[in-house]
Amino acid sequence: MLHAVIPAGGSGTRLWPLSRSNHPKFLHDLTGAERSLLQSTVARLAPLADADRTYVVTGTAHATPVARQLPAVPDRNLLIEPSPRDSCPAIALAAAVIAERDPSGIMGSFHSDHLIPDEARFVETVRTAMRLARDGYLMTIGLKPTAPETGFGYLRCGDPLDGGMVLREFREKPDKATAQSYVDAGYLWNSGLFVWQVSTFLGELARQQPKLHDVVREIAAAWDTPSREELIGRLWPELPKISVDHAVMEGAAAAGKVAVVPGDFTWHDVGDWDTLAEVLESDVDGNVTIGSGEVLSIDTTNTVVVPKGGRLIATVGVRDLVVVDTDDAVLVCPRNRAQDVKKLVDELKARGDRAHT
Amino acid sequence: MLHAVIPAGGSGTRLWPLSRSNHPKFLHDLTGAERSLLQSTVARLAPLADADRTYVVTGTAHATPVARQLPAVPDRNLLIEPSPRDSCPAIALAAAVIAERDPSGIMGSFHSDHLIPDEARFVETVRTAMRLARDGYLMTIGLKPTAPETGFGYLRCGDPLDGGMVLREFREKPDKATAQSYVDAGYLWNSGLFVWQVSTFLGELARQQPKLHDVVREIAAAWDTPSREELIGRLWPELPKISVDHAVMEGAAAAGKVAVVPGDFTWHDVGDWDTLAEVLESDVDGNVTIGSGEVLSIDTTNTVVVPKGGRLIATVGVRDLVVVDTDDAVLVCPRNRAQDVKKLVDELKARGDRAHT
Repeated sequence: MLHAVIPAGGSGTRLWPLSRSNHPKFLHDLTGAERSLLQSTVARLAPLADADRTYVVTGTAHATPVARQLPAVPDRNLLIEPSPRDSCPAIALAAAVIAERDPSGIMGSFHSDHLIPDEARFVETVRTAMRLARDGYLMTIGLKPTAPETGFGYLRCGDPLDGGMVLREFREKPDKATAQSYVDAGYLWNSGLFVWQVSTFLGELARQQPKLHDVVREIAAAWDTPSREELIGRLWPELPKISVDHAVMEGAAAAGKVAVVPGDFTWHDVGDWDTLAEVLESDVDGNVTIGSGEVLSIDTTNTVVVPKGGRLIATVGVRDLVVVDTDDAVLVCPRNRAQDVKKLVDELKARGDRAHT
Repeated sequence: MLHAVIPAGGSGTRLWPLSRSNHPKFLHDLTGAERSLLQSTVARLAPLADADRTYVVTGTAHATPVARQLPAVPDRNLLIEPSPRDSCPAIALAAAVIAERDPSGIMGSFHSDHLIPDEARFVETVRTAMRLARDGYLMTIGLKPTAPETGFGYLRCGDPLDGGMVLREFREKPDKATAQSYVDAGYLWNSGLFVWQVSTFLGELARQQPKLHDVVREIAAAWDTPSREELIGRLWPELPKISVDHAVMEGAAAAGKVAVVPGDFTWHDVGDWDTLAEVLESDVDGNVTIGSGEVLSIDTTNTVVVPKGGRLIATVGVRDLVVVDTDDAVLVCPRNRAQDVKKLVDELKARGDRAHT
């Protein structure tokens, strides 16, 4: 069995006005599945990890909705960070807590807000990663590029293993020309999905980030005791804000300790209303409706309509448009400007509008 | 002094979702004036008719909001039709009631839902019409065409009078080519604004529509008595549905009894969101906001945004669009499809959706 760790953070501002600081995208049903992205993530991992082996690392602002959305996950598996410290402290704390309970255990780290329609292939890929993780590799899942995307990091692979390859190098998000050269050279997209033995990871953490290692081990040792709150409250604020990629994975790759499993499944970073709609089912006119509210469309094509405010949304003569209705805000923008929804949120924040952000 | 009669009916479906069957456009503030179109109409007529001489003819569905919006107008001047019978019975009833109170009085009939920005010229034109009405003409106000509109009737004028012309003929709404020929021939638009002595009008009514005349006279004689309700309830349903144009004005014109005063004021039939916005002030980017709700626009031009639902309306990257938010419905359509809002309302009615129509 796997210990499945789900860091649940980020606000998803490009999915405003549904996604808010205090209710970010992973808490929402964005697919009509009648469960949130977080709940879908837990369900997808169920063949690998039961609720007792499912962990969520989240901030104080989201602890309550996370707990309510996942009633089967034990309290002691909901790791609440006193303040955000980027991904390394979050993942390291989870690894250390798991190591206390299952020193030879294998954990995976999974995004809370991604869509992976082909669940069977995803599970198979994770199982392959678990097998190689037992050989002492820090495993990352690589995905075959379908385009020279500049929004992803890339993986330069080396010697073959049974079911994977040793990783030679992580490559940061490239520019367009560089991305094309990566695709031509057979590099894979870095999914950010990791699998490893907790002992392997904590060994690399001790080697590269000894102070961070010692702090999370100290907190983890007290996790299931009355000292947890005092300890984490005192020690956590002193931890650096650092990603697991920079803090551990890059150094481990340089030492030949990272390997890649190529994933043969489609995978969607639900970034904005346009890309979200692309992976959902549309009607004959190309219109995607997200949510079960009332919609009336006449001569309307290729729209994304999100009736989440309890109102009728009516359109006539429109195309390629996003219309989102929530209790306190309405968004209208063209699909090809969906990235710019972030600008609206930035402007609202600049105005000090806490109600709508 | 004038007796000002305002028939207040019609639903204004092209101004949906603000305008509804039970709360049509004349009851709404569509201009940011902080008063409804009906209240603006009464205010515009104030130099001509005080509240005691202001009359509204309306249906049972709108009697309550009309009464509340016009607290200064006496109860006995709010004429409530038991059922809609088009414009002739409504105007005839008002004429008959006024004749009971002021047999030599002059009345005018004015639209409840039009915009006339130049109020001084409007008042001056009505005064000219009142002067000619004293000579025994049924007066209509004609407007100089600015384009070969097919949505208006036209007036073919004849011999000059002091301040006006005798009307030779009403012409129905024409096709485009005919409209152009009318404009070239100097025809005027028919505003549908009438002024006459009630005795002149009732005389023509008796000549052309004797039964209708007798019924409204009988009801009017009992108006300020306890018999009003019983009489109107019994007699009104038997009246024909007929417009004042067909029932009286066309026949009167043929008899040389109609004259025209040319109006030198701009005049707007607030038909749809696009034409409404054209007469309102826009910001530097051509955006018109109707209402005082919160709007956030980035890279947005030439839009009509109506925040009447208490929500923030946010747009990014849109142009030439109408966005209307109300308590229970959101409309999005291009400005050049504003006419087709009627199709949405027709579809809602076909579905039996009473809540949104």
